[in-house]
Amino acid sequence: MKSIISLASDNFSGIHPEVLSAIEKANRGHSMAYGDDPWTQRAQELFKHHFGPSCEAFIVFNGTGANVCGLRHVLSTWQAAFCTNTAHIWTDECGALQAVGCSLIPVPAKEGKLDLKTLQPFIEYQGNLHHIQPAAISITQSTEMGTLYSLDEMKKIAQFARKHNLLFHVDGARISNAAAALKVPLKTLSTDVGVDILSYGGTKNGLMGADAILFLRPGLSKNFQYVWKQHSQLASKMRFLSAQLVALLEGDLWLKNASHSNAMAKLLEEKLRREVPQTKILFPVEANSVFVQMPATVLKKMQEKTFFWIWSEETSTARFMTTWDTNPELIQQFVSDLKKSF
Amino acid sequence: MKSIISLASDNFSGIHPEVLSAIEKANRGHSMAYGDDPWTQRAQELFKHHFGPSCEAFIVFNGTGANVCGLRHVLSTWQAAFCTNTAHIWTDECGALQAVGCSLIPVPAKEGKLDLKTLQPFIEYQGNLHHIQPAAISITQSTEMGTLYSLDEMKKIAQFARKHNLLFHVDGARISNAAAALKVPLKTLSTDVGVDILSYGGTKNGLMGADAILFLRPGLSKNFQYVWKQHSQLASKMRFLSAQLVALLEGDLWLKNASHSNAMAKLLEEKLRREVPQTKILFPVEANSVFVQMPATVLKKMQEKTFFWIWSEETSTARFMTTWDTNPELIQQFVSDLKKSF
Amino acid sequence: MKSIISLASDNFSGIHPEVLSAIEKANRGHSMAYGDDPWTQRAQELFKHHFGPSCEAFIVFNGTGANVCGLRHVLSTWQAAFCTNTAHIWTDECGALQAVGCSLIPVPAKEGKLDLKTLQPFIEYQGNLHHIQPAAISITQSTEMGTLYSLDEMKKIAQFARKHNLLFHVDGARISNAAAALKVPLKTLSTDVGVDILSYGGTKNGLMGADAILFLRPGLSKNFQYVWKQHSQLASKMRFLSAQLVALLEGDLWLKNASHSNAMAKLLEEKLRREVPQTKILFPVEANSVFVQMPATVLKKMQEKTFFWIWSEETSTARFMTTWDTNPELIQQFVSDLKKSF
Amino acid sequence: MKSIISLASDNFSGIHPEVLSAIEKANRGHSMAYGDDPWTQRAQELFKHHFGPSCEAFIVFNGTGANVCGLRHVLSTWQAAFCTNTAHIWTDECGALQAVGCSLIPVPAKEGKLDLKTLQPFIEYQGNLHHIQPAAISITQSTEMGTLYSLDEMKKIAQFARKHNLLFHVDGARISNAAAALKVPLKTLSTDVGVDILSYGGTKNGLMGADAILFLRPGLSKNFQYVWKQHSQLASKMRFLSAQLVALLEGDLWLKNASHSNAMAKLLEEKLRREVPQTKILFPVEANSVFVQMPATVLKKMQEKTFFWIWSEETSTARFMTTWDTNPELIQQFVSDLKKSF
Repeated sequence: MKSIISLASDNFSGIHPEVLSAIEKANRGHSMAYGDDPWTQRAQELFKHHFGPSCEAFIVFNGTGANVCGLRHVLSTWQAAFCTNTAHIWTDECGALQAVGCSLIPVPAKEGKLDLKTLQPFIEYQGNLHHIQPAAISITQSTEMGTLYSLDEMKKIAQFARKHNLLFHVDGARISNAAAALKVPLKTLSTDVGVDILSYGGTKNGLMGADAILFLRPGLSKNFQYVWKQHSQLASKMRFLSAQLVALLEGDLWLKNASHSNAMAKLLEEKLRREVPQTKILFPVEANSVFVQMPATVLKKMQEKTFFWIWSEETSTARFMTTWDTNPELIQQFVSDLKKSF
Repeated sequence: MKSIISLASDNFSGIHPEVLSAIEKANRGHSMAYGDDPWTQRAQELFKHHFGPSCEAFIVFNGTGANVCGLRHVLSTWQAAFCTNTAHIWTDECGALQAVGCSLIPVPAKEGKLDLKTLQPFIEYQGNLHHIQPAAISITQSTEMGTLYSLDEMKKIAQFARKHNLLFHVDGARISNAAAALKVPLKTLSTDVGVDILSYGGTKNGLMGADAILFLRPGLSKNFQYVWKQHSQLASKMRFLSAQLVALLEGDLWLKNASHSNAMAKLLEEKLRREVPQTKILFPVEANSVFVQMPATVLKKMQEKTFFWIWSEETSTARFMTTWDTNPELIQQFVSDLKKSF
Repeated sequence: MKSIISLASDNFSGIHPEVLSAIEKANRGHSMAYGDDPWTQRAQELFKHHFGPSCEAFIVFNGTGANVCGLRHVLSTWQAAFCTNTAHIWTDECGALQAVGCSLIPVPAKEGKLDLKTLQPFIEYQGNLHHIQPAAISITQSTEMGTLYSLDEMKKIAQFARKHNLLFHVDGARISNAAAALKVPLKTLSTDVGVDILSYGGTKNGLMGADAILFLRPGLSKNFQYVWKQHSQLASKMRFLSAQLVALLEGDLWLKNASHSNAMAKLLEEKLRREVPQTKILFPVEANSVFVQMPATVLKKMQEKTFFWIWSEETSTARFMTTWDTNPELIQQFVSDLKKSF
Repeated sequence: MKSIISLASDNFSGIHPEVLSAIEKANRGHSMAYGDDPWTQRAQELFKHHFGPSCEAFIVFNGTGANVCGLRHVLSTWQAAFCTNTAHIWTDECGALQAVGCSLIPVPAKEGKLDLKTLQPFIEYQGNLHHIQPAAISITQSTEMGTLYSLDEMKKIAQFARKHNLLFHVDGARISNAAAALKVPLKTLSTDVGVDILSYGGTKNGLMGADAILFLRPGLSKNFQYVWKQHSQLASKMRFLSAQLVALLEGDLWLKNASHSNAMAKLLEEKLRREVPQTKILFPVEANSVFVQMPATVLKKMQEKTFFWIWSEETSTARFMTTWDTNPELIQQFVSDLKKSF
């Protein structure tokens, strides 16, 4: 692959220039290791600013680390978290949670989203020692299918969770895309709707590599520092992770990056609908992914031109993903190439 | 703490300018995620260059991650690794190995080093189902006490390991300091003396954050990729970790940094012996740490001037650690302040 | 509950007189602990007799212990076993497997049975480090729904397993009921059709408490003794567990008990079909369970007379289970009471 | 080995006739499974009678199961329990605790007993996220060396535990021997001195196989039922385990068995001191073990006559263990044979 912009994944993108510059500025002399430094303190303040004063933030290397540490901290080995069968924690983390004794109960997803009705049979297990005990709901916002939970849908999940004594966890690898799309502050679609724990994704939104575990309900983070350290997610030179997050959260870079990324997905969708009606768009395009069904022969031709992931050989579907550095010309070129491939 | 150079830890130091520059250069357009990129390929080649053609390298975020993944991969839950009771994996990783079902058998250290005689009683457990089964020896080179295993000592450990069907693991968070001090290539004190698995430390030697797990014996790395992913140590934008390692290993930066660091520790030792004979140096100064005993009142006065770690309140001992950016003037200033504190 | 015979579960039944007598006879003086005794040796011989000479048997306290140890031994933390979503290991062991780092992939059951087509999407995960790696298929024979896999169905599962490098595990808590119903020796529906590991159930078939893990393929049991001990399933006074299994397996007691149990379920089914046609029998009655749908008011009236488990409040279904000591008069009485309850 | 009484282990002994008779009496018709039966209820009452009204008892198959479940329930993965380096949980359970993510910190034993001074350095780790967090002390009473903690020693451990926020766990595989030797009720050397959790041993004291986990401090057992089930220690036909414990605890059988066992060890010690002064008795004989040093040639001759365990080849030491069914004639015969072997 040449060093070009692709439509494969937000993980393929580089570091936003302002973020790189922040790393450079943090590289002055010595500082305390393991997070006892001014950059980390500032990042924690900024998380409180964006998610509310009860937010306790712990900075980690990556999203899998955030999900594993956050859920491991709150689940006993005899408890389980619900998730959809398309959730990243169920399908894309190589059993990271199960490896540390955390159980998941996968339920069928609808356009990547959790349907509360599917949880009911397992709720009846509560209190019966033969059954793993449901103790959390984990959703992904925006979802792995590029769809969104509305604020109202999130509130309903939170209510269900409270009613049944479940914690509400959000895999927010793309939470900024969700906030940008819903046009609400980060607090509105997290703390305010009743989310307890959130894996905050910075890496996919223009950072080199920095995410965070946010405990949004007071008291939940008690003793978490040990879990953080124990799961190898405590960076020694943490200032360089924190500086990235500060660059993202201090102004509106987080929002600009996510909005741009969303807009590019919308552009791709519109162009496909208008210019290549032979393709079928599988899910509502609400964040920065577009799932497109097209003939296998066309997929093959396009793969010779650019790199992207086949989502399903069986249904001949590709996933296209836009990012902070996708430009409209790329989209135009891609659609124009695609048209010619039919 | 002001942004000055301290003698607290090699984790307090920043990023070497050449390494930072390498990160910047890697920030061009898109590249494959999860290590399928040219920087990672180059880093893997360089590890083969330095450790021999059988070396299989997996790049990780940090040293605890390297130790946990490496040992987890080769130990069944009913097996254990020997280590000293001063080993980082026993005392400083918050039970990271035990949390994933890996047992350790700590034995008393001699100046930070393992004494093979202490292992004998446990060797007799082999084959008896009531006892955890010794299956690996883990040492740290250079040790947590700043001492070194000679090549001959390493060979004896390797022989013992082979004889008793144990794997030989090295926590090489400061392996470069060891190689620099022993004046041998990296391969000579690892692959050539019979080390099987090595946690390679880059972070403490001038990187922003990148280490690696090296499997030095053919076949050992089979299926390791799943352990790597599962323990949240697979970086999505891996090129930025790999680029750091390439900068370190492509020329002799790794050696220059480590040699300088060692030289500064030697300088500190010499000045203390000559100028502050009231202090007592506890272990041979062979790498980049100096453990110094002095009256509690002196320790207290010095702590008002600069930050460093008290190693033991009980014995009134401080640990001083030099790094790639320690300069002789700092050492001079420190010793001169210390003299006045008596 | 009075000390009567119920239709609730085979776990409710007592000890067959011949088994109790065997315990008494084994209670002579001292014997080696932890299985180094003649009763255990004899039990192991009998397992070889019934399951073939390659069978290696390890005696355990209970079925959950058998399932956990057997699968834990063969699965790495990054591997998973397929099972149905009605499997005991998925729904009734409180996450015992997940707690020790074993992942399960539940797929929808058809009358309690696994449908190979449901596994296909996960098979495509093999070799991709982002996904948990399918490495075993676990079925229950006879199933939790009282249904049976035919020999042909088992062979197809074994073929699929071999093709995709999966081990074939059978939860045989009621394997004797299956053998009795299919009218084949135990070896025919296990070793001969390609089963690799089998949890052998004695407890539900007239014992006080003794089950076994059977490794049917040579080499699979290597080092298993450590897993056995480590998971607290190695009995110190093992002779008293082994003596029970010897009583069951030496003659045809295992077959007599299972056949009787099956016959009583058949009798219940026939009487219900003939005498209480208002009830609906949900699954083919092939072993010793009968799932019966009836109005909630009737269920309630019957529960006042005798104890049994409601399988599903939602569908108003009860599970009736016969056992080695169920007698025809009890069935007659039950059906006659039921008729009057409408 | 012939079916004779040996001096090898209390695990070699059989079932006391009153206990076997209790199993037979419990074998009447059906009863609820998984502990919802009158025998289990009665056993739980008897545990309250002997250990105080706050005692919550959970019946398990064996002592390793009791230790693992009890400690697993109260320790997070980042916490550790102190134990001696001769503790059963450290040396004889094949890493059972570590396998489920429980860390142990072994400290040197003095005649099998814990020395509080050895814990101090680890107490200083409390609150520091780099270190595993000490959260429990586990002792064995009577110890693996056949020695006893006095009531005063236990109180001091409890005080230390309270002061440092540690739970106090006792491996009481031979707690009855301790109570008999100290001539106090069970409550006096457990609940009254501040023990929080106790693994109660029945198997070594005349049962076929039944032990229990006792939570002695109110609130500690909350949610324990899930851990119990999950670790495969919940017996389906529990009445047959409970009936054994009822037989032991209803009258004074537990005390008679333990007292007899202790008396036989005392007898052996006295005879050895008087009649075979060439032997050396290694530890105070306070419960039912006698550790005896003698020339290797003598050990060898004696092993031809009877079975016993060599404790240490290196020091030429044998462990002799008496039990509820050891008779004075056996001791006499043994000592007389021994005399002739010199």
